[in-house]
Amino acid sequence: NTSFDRNKHPHRRYNPLLDEWILVSPQRANRPWQGQKEITTEEDRPVYDPECYLCSGNMRANGAQNPEYKGIYVFNNDFGALLNEEVDFSEEQSGFFALLPERGINRVVCFSENHSLTLPEMPVEHIKNVVDVWQEQFNELAALDHINYIQIFENKGSIMGCSNPHPHGQIWAQSSIPAMVQKTQDHLKSYFEKNKRTLLEDYLEQEIAAGERIVTENEHFAALVPFWASWPYETMIISKQKRENIATFSEEEKESFAVIIKDLTTRYDNLFETSFPYSAGIHQSPTDGKEHPEWHFHMHFYPPLLRSAEVKKFMVGYEMLAEPQRDITPEQSAAILRSLPTIHYKKKII
Amino acid sequence: NTSFDRNKHPHRRYNPLLDEWILVSPQRANRPWQGQKEITTEEDRPVYDPECYLCSGNMRANGAQNPEYKGIYVFNNDFGALLNEEVDFSEEQSGFFALLPERGINRVVCFSENHSLTLPEMPVEHIKNVVDVWQEQFNELAALDHINYIQIFENKGSIMGCSNPHPHGQIWAQSSIPAMVQKTQDHLKSYFEKNKRTLLEDYLEQEIAAGERIVTENEHFAALVPFWASWPYETMIISKQKRENIATFSEEEKESFAVIIKDLTTRYDNLFETSFPYSAGIHQSPTDGKEHPEWHFHMHFYPPLLRSAEVKKFMVGYEMLAEPQRDITPEQSAAILRSLPTIHYKKKII
Ligand SMILES: O=P(O)(O)O[C@H]1O[C@H](CO)[C@@H](O)[C@H](O)[C@H]1O
Ligand SMILES: O=P(O)(O)O[C@H]1O[C@H](CO)[C@@H](O)[C@H](O)[C@H]1O
Repeated sequence: NTSFDRNKHPHRRYNPLLDEWILVSPQRANRPWQGQKEITTEEDRPVYDPECYLCSGNMRANGAQNPEYKGIYVFNNDFGALLNEEVDFSEEQSGFFALLPERGINRVVCFSENHSLTLPEMPVEHIKNVVDVWQEQFNELAALDHINYIQIFENKGSIMGCSNPHPHGQIWAQSSIPAMVQKTQDHLKSYFEKNKRTLLEDYLEQEIAAGERIVTENEHFAALVPFWASWPYETMIISKQKRENIATFSEEEKESFAVIIKDLTTRYDNLFETSFPYSAGIHQSPTDGKEHPEWHFHMHFYPPLLRSAEVKKFMVGYEMLAEPQRDITPEQSAAILRSLPTIHYKKKII
Repeated sequence: NTSFDRNKHPHRRYNPLLDEWILVSPQRANRPWQGQKEITTEEDRPVYDPECYLCSGNMRANGAQNPEYKGIYVFNNDFGALLNEEVDFSEEQSGFFALLPERGINRVVCFSENHSLTLPEMPVEHIKNVVDVWQEQFNELAALDHINYIQIFENKGSIMGCSNPHPHGQIWAQSSIPAMVQKTQDHLKSYFEKNKRTLLEDYLEQEIAAGERIVTENEHFAALVPFWASWPYETMIISKQKRENIATFSEEEKESFAVIIKDLTTRYDNLFETSFPYSAGIHQSPTDGKEHPEWHFHMHFYPPLLRSAEVKKFMVGYEMLAEPQRDITPEQSAAILRSLPTIHYKKKII
């Protein structure tokens, strides 16, 4: 028998945050691709688009009008998935038909009045303002009695279901702790109870010692490709000090967070010299009034691209029914991201 | 306060197979869509395509040549995610870096030599032949000592990552029980131990009594939109009698299964008068030599389309980070699918 080589042989890796395994098939990167290609819309967008419902001063789809804002602008989503209204519920729960009303608030956070920008193209000071607003929003929503969890996220690129290219993210705040967050919390908690340290404190220590999956780091944060990443270029930003949530970030930490977001997303754009699509979001402690010493602030980046700006990884079939599967190894992805410049390709002097 | 109405108010529903909640936002179906639209390739495909690597007699990407087959043709995937080769493994598992080699076999099942067909367009007898081959393959692979689980599935449509439009499915057989199957099994098992009936026996009984989520049924199978479905038109085919796996299906049951597959997939095509994309696959007992009285044969269909042939549901952002979310209710989807004709739209007399 040949000896096992993780760069050649199929294997499974364990994800301790979700208590799940994933399948890694390093040998599969060579297969030819005759399937769907994405349309790359590397258009140069104007600074202002009269048709855009997020641009400063424009009319939104529901008839509301945006103010003439400069910088960041936050408003309640006109077509939110949650409603803030309280409803009376007395339905009987029987058998397999268990259902519960859910209350919440959906907000849109425009990152800039400039329609043409994306996070990696903004100056650090401007990204720092976005982080400030995330912190403010977190504090404001956390203060509401019926809000127990706040999901801050960004869908970037039309391939990620983003319905508008204007730079923006979303905040969904709700009464329940959503499924994936609850699962993460359960595993963080049992780890913390056993070890008196957070799972991510210990994990990050081991990753920094190993080095091979680290993409970039600064004083307060590290960005790495998790050992158990399922998307080809999936990464995670983890706070070096244990922080339960963004509320306690100092000015310096917020600045440091902005720096690493710019660094990481610039590498992403430089990878295929395209505006790199992803869904990204922060996982942090619920705002349910309970103690959460087990929580450790982190931000997930789930980008779909695999081989080029046109060829994405399809999480379908086997992946939907059985188990997430990836082709290149996390170590290979990290090495590639690590080697990329942190000057945005659009700024290159020609 | 208004009284709760599940057709108007956001709520969460419980999925007992995965022990997870999903978010339902019935009020959200009205939001305007300015995002990505899919290209509908409703091309008339030729019966034979000289460029297709699955057509009868053609050369495949790796240089192998297909026989001049008629009907069904099965071969080992040239670029499989698994390798059948046994490897020696002695790596030490330390800390967060847990990894195990995985062995297995990937097969491709061409459903027909006719490049232009899809399952709903085939006669029932022909679909019955596909079911026969699934059963044969299951038996053959189950007999191998190192194969403990067999995932039979189909990715249909380029939007579902299907790299070739020739009608075909796949079989991934492997030594471990994959993550989602293991989870399903855990919940089936604890239900069975408590109730001495399978979870799906009891669930199906309640669904047939309720009626509102049933799409279609025949003597041996029912197709329904699960109470906890997350994709807009997600369905499940469940065997009416408890069957642990396909091995024990009688001729009559296989015929009945073929009939319900044709019925359901024809409704799907008729919904938007397009070749309806989906990932579909069978969940059944592992082949690990253990007793599995908890298992109950079922087939999941996960179709991405939401509003039309062009507009799909994006499971991104909130859904990747927090919880699956759907816009129309499962009852609305079931009513629509139930109302559709079972004559394929391409066969309509004009
Ligand atoms: O094997 P195919 O059809 O080339 O590939 C497709 O199905 C596989 C199994 O669901 C996935 O892993 C791939 O991402 C997808 O593109
Ligand atoms: O809110 P948007 O950007 O219109 O919509 C997008 O993000 C949402 C939250 O991730 C998803 O539920 C939608 O499927 C997606 O299209």
